[in-house]
Amino acid sequence: MQATLIYGAGDVRVENVPDPVLREPTDAIVRVLRACVCGSDLWPYKSRAATEEGERIGHEFLGVVEDAGSQVSGLRRGDVVVAPFVWSDNTCDFCREGLQTSCRHGGLWGANGVDGGQGEAVRVPQADGTLVKLPVEEDSELLPSLLTLSDVYPTGNHCAVTAGVGPGTTVTVIGDGAVGLMAVLSARRLGAERIILMGRHQGRTDLGRDFGATDVVAERGDEGVEHVRQLTGGDGTHAVLECVGTRQAIETAFAVARDGGTVSRVGAPQYDEVPMGFGEFFRNLTLTGGVAPARAYIEELLPAILDGTLEPGRVFDRTVSLEQVPDGYRAMNDRAALKVLIRP
Amino acid sequence: MQATLIYGAGDVRVENVPDPVLREPTDAIVRVLRACVCGSDLWPYKSRAATEEGERIGHEFLGVVEDAGSQVSGLRRGDVVVAPFVWSDNTCDFCREGLQTSCRHGGLWGANGVDGGQGEAVRVPQADGTLVKLPVEEDSELLPSLLTLSDVYPTGNHCAVTAGVGPGTTVTVIGDGAVGLMAVLSARRLGAERIILMGRHQGRTDLGRDFGATDVVAERGDEGVEHVRQLTGGDGTHAVLECVGTRQAIETAFAVARDGGTVSRVGAPQYDEVPMGFGEFFRNLTLTGGVAPARAYIEELLPAILDGTLEPGRVFDRTVSLEQVPDGYRAMNDRAALKVLIRP
Repeated sequence: MQATLIYGAGDVRVENVPDPVLREPTDAIVRVLRACVCGSDLWPYKSRAATEEGERIGHEFLGVVEDAGSQVSGLRRGDVVVAPFVWSDNTCDFCREGLQTSCRHGGLWGANGVDGGQGEAVRVPQADGTLVKLPVEEDSELLPSLLTLSDVYPTGNHCAVTAGVGPGTTVTVIGDGAVGLMAVLSARRLGAERIILMGRHQGRTDLGRDFGATDVVAERGDEGVEHVRQLTGGDGTHAVLECVGTRQAIETAFAVARDGGTVSRVGAPQYDEVPMGFGEFFRNLTLTGGVAPARAYIEELLPAILDGTLEPGRVFDRTVSLEQVPDGYRAMNDRAALKVLIRP
Repeated sequence: MQATLIYGAGDVRVENVPDPVLREPTDAIVRVLRACVCGSDLWPYKSRAATEEGERIGHEFLGVVEDAGSQVSGLRRGDVVVAPFVWSDNTCDFCREGLQTSCRHGGLWGANGVDGGQGEAVRVPQADGTLVKLPVEEDSELLPSLLTLSDVYPTGNHCAVTAGVGPGTTVTVIGDGAVGLMAVLSARRLGAERIILMGRHQGRTDLGRDFGATDVVAERGDEGVEHVRQLTGGDGTHAVLECVGTRQAIETAFAVARDGGTVSRVGAPQYDEVPMGFGEFFRNLTLTGGVAPARAYIEELLPAILDGTLEPGRVFDRTVSLEQVPDGYRAMNDRAALKVLIRP
């Protein structure tokens, strides 16, 4: 079968790899219907050292169960399923608490002999815990929105939930990438009173307005902070959803937070330290968030997609075949595409 | 009258100052019955640059209302009152939200022409908002415990509350100073299942056990982290209450937190940055806490002191007269005293 491998910065290839087979009785084999490219795939794409051997890549996919091990009880051949971007047993104490990203028996896709998601098929470890059945057919028009349940939508949702967004909350969302837009959608869903989206790409911020942003701030750095403060009577917002991951973004986040407010971050940090000294201490600012336990949110987010109320799949603005995946990476890296859908 | 002034590092003097008078119609004059020395008073005592003019110091006191301005409606001459360590109007939006430390019309004691608390009397701005009436007489034996409501007890309580401590929570408290011990007491009050106190001064950790600590870890740094992890099956604790304020303490805090856990800090940070990079992100750690809005907690904490259930005043292990205040600073700075009570 065909799958995507990364060999180094800028070097993503689609190659023949062995068909996946069941290795553990808790495995399932899933034929991929849709996958996509994540903003976090761009970090290795920008910086990975070149290697002779490629490594499977991709961690967002949905597909059809083709086979299941003897200990898999909740799935059968033909089920349409979505996989969260971390696999987990969903039974350990961390999973039961909704922190499947810290599962005692879980792990990452495309690492330690586990397949990546950007291919024709995937061996899924801990299939009963990892996969969530979707009540749709293989040709459903909802597949793009359902695929967002794998990562980008729960990630935006995790950001809004951990920031404590609810009715009456004022929110700043930093970043108009796919995660930022999902954070807007999620803040709206949770009842935020006002949602200020910081982003400079009009096509994206327009979609952000559709998803619920009430204001857009295009400036960055000090000017951006000043603009948000102007919009909020000098105070900043209760919640700040940091969806970028750079040092500038997290600095901006603290600067636009209201005293007593919460900054939540879901952009993978490209920094080791954050500025939380005496000033932030005296203002009682909280920093929360982290890698999103997507699995914990899927059941809750699913109904509004199934009934058409919410369309998170609108973040996909380009569709490629498996052979075209390298073009998809280039397009996202060049910001020519917001988020690329893959149809193997 | 006599009051304490600081002139520089190690240079605290008790001198004659003018008697306080009402300046604003919202002021009150309070004759001080009890004051005390705070761990945070030791920061200027260790490091303040020498100046020709001294500055009033002290921010924890209780006393008797001697006079009140025309717009003070809730207090009358003779009322015994306690003052939180930040004065506030208690009516603005921040105050109504319980964040009186960010009051729009409040401020600090001993700054910008406002008296310090370590003296015979104090002019109290925003008296209606700031002062809380205590249903006791001037000679009550409860005065030491009631004085802790000014700062150290609500500060420990703020740490436990913002960390989300409740029934079933496992907790590490870093620091066996007065604030750390109040954090232990507060975690216990909130129903914590297990409270590991990190501290090396046996007299203090013994008091910590009385207040509710279930385990004591005397080691610091990597050894201390290792010991806490041993006690918790390798996982760390749900909540970590950081009551020191040094870089080492905050590093230890992240290292002993369980995945998904919360570090709350109430020790004034002696650092500008905290290590919250990819590792802490992937573990979904939260950093919260800050300067405690003591005013917000006083009514809630008062009854258990009045009925004798809790005795936070046990943190005072030395009592001095006003003239002996410089000795009190020395004793606390040398760690010969845990917390010094002042009887003017």
